[in-house]
Amino acid sequence: MTDTFVVIGGDAAGMSAASKAKRDDPDREVIVFEKGEWVSYAACGMPYYVKGAVDELDDLVTVTPEEFREERDVDLRTGSEVVGIDPEERTVTVETDGETSEQPYDDLLVATGASAIEPPFEGLELEGVFTIHDMDEADAIEDYVTDHGPETAAIVGGGYVGIEMAEALSARGVDVHLYEMLPHVLQPFGEAVAEVVEDHLREQGIELHLETAVSGFDGDERVDCVELEDETVPADIAIVGVGVTPNVELAEAAGIELGPTGAIATDEYGRTNLENVYAAGDNAEATHVVTGEPDHVPLALTANRAGRAIGQTVTGNSTPTGGTAGTAIVKAFDLGAARTGIVDEDQAREADFDPVSVSISASTRAHYYPGGAELTVTLVADRESGELLGGTVVGREGAKRIDTVATALTAGMTVNELQNADLAYAPPFSPVWDPILTAAKVLAGKLE
Amino acid sequence: MTDTFVVIGGDAAGMSAASKAKRDDPDREVIVFEKGEWVSYAACGMPYYVKGAVDELDDLVTVTPEEFREERDVDLRTGSEVVGIDPEERTVTVETDGETSEQPYDDLLVATGASAIEPPFEGLELEGVFTIHDMDEADAIEDYVTDHGPETAAIVGGGYVGIEMAEALSARGVDVHLYEMLPHVLQPFGEAVAEVVEDHLREQGIELHLETAVSGFDGDERVDCVELEDETVPADIAIVGVGVTPNVELAEAAGIELGPTGAIATDEYGRTNLENVYAAGDNAEATHVVTGEPDHVPLALTANRAGRAIGQTVTGNSTPTGGTAGTAIVKAFDLGAARTGIVDEDQAREADFDPVSVSISASTRAHYYPGGAELTVTLVADRESGELLGGTVVGREGAKRIDTVATALTAGMTVNELQNADLAYAPPFSPVWDPILTAAKVLAGKLE
Repeated sequence: MTDTFVVIGGDAAGMSAASKAKRDDPDREVIVFEKGEWVSYAACGMPYYVKGAVDELDDLVTVTPEEFREERDVDLRTGSEVVGIDPEERTVTVETDGETSEQPYDDLLVATGASAIEPPFEGLELEGVFTIHDMDEADAIEDYVTDHGPETAAIVGGGYVGIEMAEALSARGVDVHLYEMLPHVLQPFGEAVAEVVEDHLREQGIELHLETAVSGFDGDERVDCVELEDETVPADIAIVGVGVTPNVELAEAAGIELGPTGAIATDEYGRTNLENVYAAGDNAEATHVVTGEPDHVPLALTANRAGRAIGQTVTGNSTPTGGTAGTAIVKAFDLGAARTGIVDEDQAREADFDPVSVSISASTRAHYYPGGAELTVTLVADRESGELLGGTVVGREGAKRIDTVATALTAGMTVNELQNADLAYAPPFSPVWDPILTAAKVLAGKLE
Repeated sequence: MTDTFVVIGGDAAGMSAASKAKRDDPDREVIVFEKGEWVSYAACGMPYYVKGAVDELDDLVTVTPEEFREERDVDLRTGSEVVGIDPEERTVTVETDGETSEQPYDDLLVATGASAIEPPFEGLELEGVFTIHDMDEADAIEDYVTDHGPETAAIVGGGYVGIEMAEALSARGVDVHLYEMLPHVLQPFGEAVAEVVEDHLREQGIELHLETAVSGFDGDERVDCVELEDETVPADIAIVGVGVTPNVELAEAAGIELGPTGAIATDEYGRTNLENVYAAGDNAEATHVVTGEPDHVPLALTANRAGRAIGQTVTGNSTPTGGTAGTAIVKAFDLGAARTGIVDEDQAREADFDPVSVSISASTRAHYYPGGAELTVTLVADRESGELLGGTVVGREGAKRIDTVATALTAGMTVNELQNADLAYAPPFSPVWDPILTAAKVLAGKLE
């Protein structure tokens, strides 16, 4: 008798778990139910498809359904929606083409992902108004731009999606207006990053509307304007990207507990409160490496890593899902912006730290070596312990240097320890003191 | 009565110490003796001056003598060679313009640097034969290339200097032959890097002569050929870059102890065996963060950091000089190659580790995102403890990702911890699993 590992959801967390379980225990029965037709796709790549930098939507698929079935021997059932979980009987109820069936499980992974938030806007149903959170939507945006050649776009939300879509539509020749309710774009990156990015967006011709609430869209079948508090601005296409919300209805109905963030609560192995039921990916919490508290960070690496770990755990090799530092990076035209850990001082105080921060700007290369760019680095630390809490970087090159800070957070380093890290130097790659080290040096001085 | 801090040597370590001491304690008398005229210059930038990527030799100077004297208030005495140290009397003997004088010190820093090794070659004295370890030599090479327009170059030594000079002379239109005694170039980077670099050097038209010993040069006043064991190859210019040796004669004569590497032995504060006498930079040892043993790593960051720390220590703020991981990065035409920690398995075994290593190649960006390059990553760990020992990377972009590994070494992370680092992902910057994480994942699998 073989155990059955059932996975609900065929994207990053689900397919990573299924593949890893099958690889580590080929005798294991592994069934994945995916309600749509796309699996294992790079949602983060969708703006680049719209932009025209990626030729085919299929290019965003990492592993095709056929490869999962034939090469990885995963019983992948697309077009199959799980509508119920019975933890007593250890079964899930599945709807496929209008037919309902029961599937028993020994281990279950809930990897239902997240959905784009739909704010209570008038006119969301108009043609030409899109959210962007699945492949069909990306396809529809691309088609709409190609078919209707919009002149003006309204992008609502200045987070990753908003900024990436601003770049994408701008590259397609559309005049872009970006609306953000808060005083700055990229709120989780802090002001030092936001100011550099905002200047650059304006240079690139993006019309920024900060501290501006959108109330809806108007038009005759097709959108033709965006409604603000006391103004109406023309818009031939609108993209709403104001964040995502975890898909937890199915889990909640089955008695799976949610955590403080509203996503599914899990332990360090991705286990929920129900026996043999795991959760991972954009619907689940992860432990923050700095605070040790649950956090909801719906990002690809966290999902992949947790899925993979659960694939190992259910096949007998108990593996922690790994924490999150909330590390993120985004391209904004010619800039890269990145963040990790706790950047916001209020958030640091809520987690009982006494935050001290510095921002410095330094060149990415030796001062005399051609081609360098200014990198602005912000680091935050706890005054008493010197523990590094987080950081950001922004510049025309070198944004991946955030990884140094993220690694330091994972290791629990102090600013002083980071200051002494032996980073690589040669004139074409860095000044003698890498900008990260310079920031650490200045912050260490402030902590003395 | 003010204490006098005397520094011997006006480059990275010496000027960092002098500047920091003066900054932290403006009343302190700080005297630097430099035998030459150049101070605080970027030796690492010299190949780029010869190449033509840097216009003026003066561009390589970080801080000018005038700035040190006027803005930083350091009593900098160029053209002044310290020829003796009397630790009993706490004085140094200085020769300036043929005059000899005694200078008392309260604290003394020996920062005499290193010199290019001159192998026992015939014909080293010929015109057109150069080593490259100071600014005057870089100037002389540039002049020689400009004045004589050499057609063919012989570069002896396949380390950083050799490879950087190969690129530089190639850019000046010279046919370059590179001679290396060992089976591979860039020996400290290991085979995985060397093979990628060698292929690329050949693609770029460099004639590689591996496992080839040079016995000397010949010519009539000016060099016209390089002599091998059983062959003579034309060469209108020759550059010898076979490594450096620490300048320790002055220190030895004063009774300062050397360590196992032949450089000056120091404790974690840069102190030598003599009271109030410090050493830092290319003439001194540093503690290796992985082995905890003394090592000699004559690189700029180590020198700057140790100098700066000693500047703090002598002004009452005792500061460790920081360890070294032997991190290094080099540009070889379109490639970046980098290393950190212990890469060589034999060296790992000598340090009582049981090394396990992997090499993987992965793209620097999402597979569908344009412009990515293959990055080859090697990681080495100890089998029993899982402790990370070292790593290398090589590729057309992303070589600075070595910093993630270097930071992990500084923090003493295991491979498993590194595998769980929350590194940044977005399609233009990385695949979901950064190549460093992929390598850690594969290595962790091998350790299980």
